[in-house]
Amino acid sequence: MAKKHDTGVMFERAAFIGIGHIGSSMALAMRRAGVVGSIIACDKSAAHRKTALKRKIVDEATADAGKAVKGADLVVIATPISTNGAIAKAIAPHLKQGAIVTDVGSVKQDVIAAVAPHIPKGVTFVPGHPLAGTEHSGPEAGFAELFDGRWTVLTPLPRTPAKAITKIATLWKRMGAKVDTMKPAHHDRVLAITSHLPHLCAFTVVGTATDLAEDLKQEVIQFSASGFRDFTRVAASDPIMWRDIFLSNKEAVLDILQRFTEDLAGMQKHIRRGDGAALEKMFTRTRAIRRGIIEAKQA
Amino acid sequence: MAKKHDTGVMFERAAFIGIGHIGSSMALAMRRAGVVGSIIACDKSAAHRKTALKRKIVDEATADAGKAVKGADLVVIATPISTNGAIAKAIAPHLKQGAIVTDVGSVKQDVIAAVAPHIPKGVTFVPGHPLAGTEHSGPEAGFAELFDGRWTVLTPLPRTPAKAITKIATLWKRMGAKVDTMKPAHHDRVLAITSHLPHLCAFTVVGTATDLAEDLKQEVIQFSASGFRDFTRVAASDPIMWRDIFLSNKEAVLDILQRFTEDLAGMQKHIRRGDGAALEKMFTRTRAIRRGIIEAKQA
Repeated sequence: MAKKHDTGVMFERAAFIGIGHIGSSMALAMRRAGVVGSIIACDKSAAHRKTALKRKIVDEATADAGKAVKGADLVVIATPISTNGAIAKAIAPHLKQGAIVTDVGSVKQDVIAAVAPHIPKGVTFVPGHPLAGTEHSGPEAGFAELFDGRWTVLTPLPRTPAKAITKIATLWKRMGAKVDTMKPAHHDRVLAITSHLPHLCAFTVVGTATDLAEDLKQEVIQFSASGFRDFTRVAASDPIMWRDIFLSNKEAVLDILQRFTEDLAGMQKHIRRGDGAALEKMFTRTRAIRRGIIEAKQA
Repeated sequence: MAKKHDTGVMFERAAFIGIGHIGSSMALAMRRAGVVGSIIACDKSAAHRKTALKRKIVDEATADAGKAVKGADLVVIATPISTNGAIAKAIAPHLKQGAIVTDVGSVKQDVIAAVAPHIPKGVTFVPGHPLAGTEHSGPEAGFAELFDGRWTVLTPLPRTPAKAITKIATLWKRMGAKVDTMKPAHHDRVLAITSHLPHLCAFTVVGTATDLAEDLKQEVIQFSASGFRDFTRVAASDPIMWRDIFLSNKEAVLDILQRFTEDLAGMQKHIRRGDGAALEKMFTRTRAIRRGIIEAKQA
């Protein structure tokens, strides 16, 4: 079905609303794959626009979202989730007939609820989420290889045409990603476990350390390599992006957090009582999940 | 003071009680540095003894700890913490006059309390802890480079002779490590934060995922790269070793766990109330710790 897109230009003109870490990496991956003619970026940050132009990530840059999407046959919304509704409303009157709008948000139900109602007739919205990123931010941190071998999850609506889904799936594959589709609510539940809960733990552990006395804090930094360091890398991720994720995926995050808190209380009880058998049992069964990941070649 | 040990053999004969991941890596690092004459390993596992001999990690292997330490001028106890007291008692009558006994335990107060009373007159105990390791276990996972650039913390007793402390510090430096000294109680508090709490979070998050319905679990494995995967690597660490750490460092772990739980409840409240400003503030201040780690060149 997507055979005709396996090589060559798929979109004559792509517009990015937001040219941060993900947006700039996508633009570079699209250029590497030769899937796009010209690229224009809209970003409210003058520094981001300047960097994106200087690094030749995009051909043009503007602060005007309406202007950016004019004539574009692909529009990528790559800003913090909380802004997506207002952006969709702002660009709607300027979207080209036949254009595809996609996004990269880490939460899908909320984004769909905010964006979909603004998408005009003749334009298709294909919600997406590349499971990739680093702790760095901004277009200076963008690189073409970010999506290589990583999953991108598309969460189409029941009314999304199959042709548009296939086209965006092909686009991601040509950018190096593996592609899967999911229902939006299911995506949000899976990501609450695989991403949002681990990040919340890391932010909290590092926050707890932040409150320590200064001399102890210095030693925590010195000896961070014993586990803590990995948590600080995660906890250095963009604060605005993560604020929006936790607010947008509130229900699924609170559900898994409740289960985690119960399990942690269980661990605490085992430690307090000195119940070595229970701890050993817990630590042994978690190994099975690791084996599953190794077998799935995700390790 | 340690100048005479900067090159050449420091110990004619070293005995390892336990030749697992850490013991075998130490033996290989000692060989690489040329600091040791011959090496004998005691391990209750016949498979470990066989692997250690086959990989030429040690020259001799035995299941008899008393036999292993005979004539050794360096004895390294590298078994799970809970066994250290019994081992010290068993080897005590066989230790050579003038020998140095050291260990690698992740908790120091408990180990010192269990080992020190058994150390005979004329033998010196220098407690130590290399902050290094992987999620792998056993002598098949040992490698000489494990300690390169990593910290080893020595926690001598007030009565430990400076000469022995310096000698073990020099040994670790020649194995590639950086060395610091700390009071045992302080070590246990720092490690509770930098290592034991992050590991407890990882074990618990993975444990929570283990309880999910089978179909959801498969997707958690498939999309693990978004954060969860790093937790599963940590949570695949040796169950016995970690059981012993949590039981031995109960007080410090429960203290930091209490603070963490309070902070997590705060996060939960902010999410439930939709308090974006509070979340953003939390996520911003954790970045300062990361900057400290980068400045300390530990990133």
